[in-house]
Amino acid sequence: MKFIEQKSISNSFAQELIQAAKIKAQQMKINVNIAIVDQGGNLVAFSRMDHAPLLSINIAQNKAYSAVAFRLPTHEWYGLIKDQPSLKMGIVHTEKLVVFGGGYPIFDGELLVGGIGVSGGSEDEDRQCCEAALKLIKKEMFSKTI
Amino acid sequence: MKFIEQKSISNSFAQELIQAAKIKAQQMKINVNIAIVDQGGNLVAFSRMDHAPLLSINIAQNKAYSAVAFRLPTHEWYGLIKDQPSLKMGIVHTEKLVVFGGGYPIFDGELLVGGIGVSGGSEDEDRQCCEAALKLIKKEMFSKTI
Amino acid sequence: MKFIEQKSISNSFAQELIQAAKIKAQQMKINVNIAIVDQGGNLVAFSRMDHAPLLSINIAQNKAYSAVAFRLPTHEWYGLIKDQPSLKMGIVHTEKLVVFGGGYPIFDGELLVGGIGVSGGSEDEDRQCCEAALKLIKKEMFSKTI
Amino acid sequence: MKFIEQKSISNSFAQELIQAAKIKAQQMKINVNIAIVDQGGNLVAFSRMDHAPLLSINIAQNKAYSAVAFRLPTHEWYGLIKDQPSLKMGIVHTEKLVVFGGGYPIFDGELLVGGIGVSGGSEDEDRQCCEAALKLIKKEMFSKTI
Repeated sequence: MKFIEQKSISNSFAQELIQAAKIKAQQMKINVNIAIVDQGGNLVAFSRMDHAPLLSINIAQNKAYSAVAFRLPTHEWYGLIKDQPSLKMGIVHTEKLVVFGGGYPIFDGELLVGGIGVSGGSEDEDRQCCEAALKLIKKEMFSKTI
Repeated sequence: MKFIEQKSISNSFAQELIQAAKIKAQQMKINVNIAIVDQGGNLVAFSRMDHAPLLSINIAQNKAYSAVAFRLPTHEWYGLIKDQPSLKMGIVHTEKLVVFGGGYPIFDGELLVGGIGVSGGSEDEDRQCCEAALKLIKKEMFSKTI
Repeated sequence: MKFIEQKSISNSFAQELIQAAKIKAQQMKINVNIAIVDQGGNLVAFSRMDHAPLLSINIAQNKAYSAVAFRLPTHEWYGLIKDQPSLKMGIVHTEKLVVFGGGYPIFDGELLVGGIGVSGGSEDEDRQCCEAALKLIKKEMFSKTI
Repeated sequence: MKFIEQKSISNSFAQELIQAAKIKAQQMKINVNIAIVDQGGNLVAFSRMDHAPLLSINIAQNKAYSAVAFRLPTHEWYGLIKDQPSLKMGIVHTEKLVVFGGGYPIFDGELLVGGIGVSGGSEDEDRQCCEAALKLIKKEMFSKTI
């Protein structure tokens, strides 16, 4: 096998995901940064809502990167490392790795196609914004199965 | 005077600017990366068109940053430094500084409010994408004066 | 369109490409570093021949990255920028960008699937190593057309 | 004594070690990144199995580096620092240092000749991949003694 078949999130769908996360943030009356990366971890689209914190510009991007780079929602990291002292102490220094909630890999069926990261609210709020965006995928998949 | 009044580009207007640059790129049949920063040089919005070069992800952001950081379109740099050997040799090493075309400061009247950077086409094409976006500002200002 | 179809170089084919480049280097009695990246610019495989220069470890990787990130053989950069003083002076500072020969994008037909970078010989020797590897693609494509 | 005699892992043996680690990973049905560095800590060979996590590209290289740079398997770090608060808190910030399992120095007898790092599975799985590779050394040494 010479090549691996891949699929990656398009710019237009990235904008839709951002829009969905933004609407959720507005409902919660918070201002967040939202980043979408492709399956290679490269930035596709980014949006900082008015008055969202500057510090979160990079955190949102790193959450999206971490999610795709380990195929794991970022909030699942802590459970994996909390009982392994060396990991708990050491892995958090990995460049661009975020180990708290607000980053999710995006799958089309079984296939990793990108990642989303949100930062600016509480961990729980950030996750809700991501999940609001990810509903667009599920809706699509649901409509396929009908 | 205790404070400086500032104004910065909103997220929604940043999206409109990106949209205008994107339409211009589509007309020229090129795929580009487009970045908008606020008056503090911080990223507000970013969009990578499908198949736009990866290398330009950072270049677009750096062009927008350079434009706002010196209140100067990036293509004007070369004229300023070409006859000053020390600058010509040295300033190009400045972190995030881009000295070729495709980055423009954004003004509201006299007030600096942000910057736009486009990368992925030729220098001339990148500039045309920026200028297509900046027309939205002029249109706005024109409608005010009527 | 929600997703973009992509294809990327497999680990096993990356090893074959490295092997072909290595054989070419041995024929020329040089020792080189060889890097293969996928279509997202991420490292797939790397090999430093015995006694190859350390400095070239990163150069080979950056050549492969540059080739895929701009979809252009790295030796074509100079022709594009030599008559545009601002680009010639400025773009060379782009992080990870190499503008001299020894990096090639890898296409499967029209589709970008990865990049190869070789460093350690002269510019011309590095290019010959890459081209020896890329023959594996052409052979494949040729056999398809029969 | 004007010079120190050194010995370092060859490219061809590095490839064999990678191959052995890969076979172990396949048996465990995981996809990992494998890096081999020489006794100077410089990358000799690297291989990312298809679908191995991107985040682990650098972690594998850093594990191999850490192992050779302190002549210590990376999993032994935690025991050394856990009771020394200043080390525990501070040393993990050392650039490229990994303090969890999956990196091993490679010795030829008493002589440090390189390091191996594996990342992509659990800490335990990563270590098993390394150890499968290191068996090639022992086998070699055993056959010498017969």
